[in-house]
Amino acid sequence: MNDEERLARAALSRLAEPGDHRYTSLAAELGAVEFHRQLLMQRDLHGVLIDAAARLASTDPEAELARAATLGIRFVIPGDDEWPRQLDDLAMAGELHERGGVPIGLWVRGPLRLDRLEESVAVVGSRSATTYGTSVAGEIAAVAARAEVTVVSGAAYGIDQAAHRGAVAMGGPTVAVLACGADRIYPKAHAALIEHIAATGAVVSEAPLGCSPQRVRFLARNRLIAALTRGTVIVEAAVRSGALNTANWADRLNRSVMGVPGPVTSAPSGGVHQLIRTGGATLVTSGHEVLEMVGKAGEHLLAPPRGPETSRDLLPVRQRQVLDAVPVATGASVPSIARVAGLGLLEVRSALSRLHAAGLVEEADDGWRLAALART
Amino acid sequence: MNDEERLARAALSRLAEPGDHRYTSLAAELGAVEFHRQLLMQRDLHGVLIDAAARLASTDPEAELARAATLGIRFVIPGDDEWPRQLDDLAMAGELHERGGVPIGLWVRGPLRLDRLEESVAVVGSRSATTYGTSVAGEIAAVAARAEVTVVSGAAYGIDQAAHRGAVAMGGPTVAVLACGADRIYPKAHAALIEHIAATGAVVSEAPLGCSPQRVRFLARNRLIAALTRGTVIVEAAVRSGALNTANWADRLNRSVMGVPGPVTSAPSGGVHQLIRTGGATLVTSGHEVLEMVGKAGEHLLAPPRGPETSRDLLPVRQRQVLDAVPVATGASVPSIARVAGLGLLEVRSALSRLHAAGLVEEADDGWRLAALART
Repeated sequence: MNDEERLARAALSRLAEPGDHRYTSLAAELGAVEFHRQLLMQRDLHGVLIDAAARLASTDPEAELARAATLGIRFVIPGDDEWPRQLDDLAMAGELHERGGVPIGLWVRGPLRLDRLEESVAVVGSRSATTYGTSVAGEIAAVAARAEVTVVSGAAYGIDQAAHRGAVAMGGPTVAVLACGADRIYPKAHAALIEHIAATGAVVSEAPLGCSPQRVRFLARNRLIAALTRGTVIVEAAVRSGALNTANWADRLNRSVMGVPGPVTSAPSGGVHQLIRTGGATLVTSGHEVLEMVGKAGEHLLAPPRGPETSRDLLPVRQRQVLDAVPVATGASVPSIARVAGLGLLEVRSALSRLHAAGLVEEADDGWRLAALART
Repeated sequence: MNDEERLARAALSRLAEPGDHRYTSLAAELGAVEFHRQLLMQRDLHGVLIDAAARLASTDPEAELARAATLGIRFVIPGDDEWPRQLDDLAMAGELHERGGVPIGLWVRGPLRLDRLEESVAVVGSRSATTYGTSVAGEIAAVAARAEVTVVSGAAYGIDQAAHRGAVAMGGPTVAVLACGADRIYPKAHAALIEHIAATGAVVSEAPLGCSPQRVRFLARNRLIAALTRGTVIVEAAVRSGALNTANWADRLNRSVMGVPGPVTSAPSGGVHQLIRTGGATLVTSGHEVLEMVGKAGEHLLAPPRGPETSRDLLPVRQRQVLDAVPVATGASVPSIARVAGLGLLEVRSALSRLHAAGLVEEADDGWRLAALART
């Protein structure tokens, strides 16, 4: 990767809003170097010049890359060894809320290489989460981290925070994708968490240094969380929550979309329920079910959950019926058992002898009763 | 319908266990009168004679029908005006747990005619329900009853009881399908509820008078609950719960199967989650969603739930972005807003003038700030 490409992309990163599809598509179409050159020549392409003109003069990509380096931030661009190739899927995924496309580049702080995110899962949800939601999100993230699946989230209050913490608690690396510059901390209250992630995992942003978090930048950021990972788990999301935007991106990108249900009386579960209900997400109840969905084929496969199987389940229906009619303590006669069971004497005698052979009933002085095996 | 047919079916009802597919299929194949005649002639058909011999001699269908009448119980058989034709679907639905087929007849106590169950829904679930589960079941049943959709359940503890009560509270008729004879009360603690249902709706059983509730009779009963109704809602059901057996029947009968989710930490929701997860049930969160699934085409259609739409949602992305950068109280200059928004001066000026026209921002002495409309 030559310097010219990186400088052109650093300049475009400053000119473009994250996920502005005009920029991302022109960069893909013309190449970043040529696109940037044409802008410098005041050529208006798809109307972006008017947009960029105010910032074009003040852009200094060399200084910007140098400043990033002093802050421990690298600029990862398509073609780099570290480039997470799964992001290239964004080229085909269209637009949502006027955002879309492969990012011009990613500003990254932290030791985790982004090309190591093949085994990863996004765990996202409501800022105004319940203790139920944060507890489930933390547990899912912990199970993922134990299985060496990297947890990606947005460092927001509520579910995001719980997801990062769950991964951190297991010593697993985790990735925070921010809507502000990678040098900034948002929300401020998560300074310690974000610094810990920068020290052990990666803090990632499509926006250049110094950018403030803004609503449209959150929408652009959500597409990266969905695109970086194999699947997205929504833990709690009210109807119209931003987390559903991430789910929508994951769906467009053919990633797994998973939803954790909750009480139907809980508003923060409303959006998740709607998503599951309409077939937009698969219901998941545990980290193991999540791993099953995001694992490589054949990995993390779960046996379907089942209750304990008892010896009575294995009996033919008629024997079960007789067994039901045999008393626990005081013995009963065959006619009495036949009456209770609503069966004929012959059938009852035949069933009792089989049940006796199986050790499930015993004959006492006062008649038939359950054996110890059948009483447990 | 001639008396001969009713008498033959009353006799067969006494000889056969509810849902014994050998009896139900022979009755369908030969006709009840001929089937009964052959049994009386000691002809063994599909091995049922050995089974029936012990009871054949003591069967007195005339006396049985007379005794039922004194108890206010009628015997409804295929071909009667009151016969619920949807039960005929059972002929094609195969067997499950060795039960299956169209019932020989139904013993019915109560004023509600069974042919009035076209608009009906089953609400069933765990005996060991939580207060969450019983509250949701009651609410769903109440909404159904208000819409004149009859609630069918099994009168058991927990979800069943809550469902019947929810319907009763709205003054709606409800149907209890029992695993014991229609003259018996099971469970005993629900005597008042079952008597109320018998006085206002219908208590139904496939088993003849006096029969005790037994495990296999519950399995046979579940298929009737599923077959009588347009759809089955499972509110809480642990893995391997009997309510899942009802869901399985509903699915075989091409009825709607619906599941109410709950916390993933709650065992009584485990079976429901598994069912939704594997595509065996549609997630529902309210009585209105249930009505939408069981209603006639076009009835009870719901608008998809959505959060409140605000005027900001309708703005183009660039105007939203500028609006985000305008402070609430103290005014800000255009260059300051442009810096925060990361946009050019021209764009910001253009967006501000549109936002001003929309009444969302105002210009004070110290610059631009949000108007009252945008602050709410």
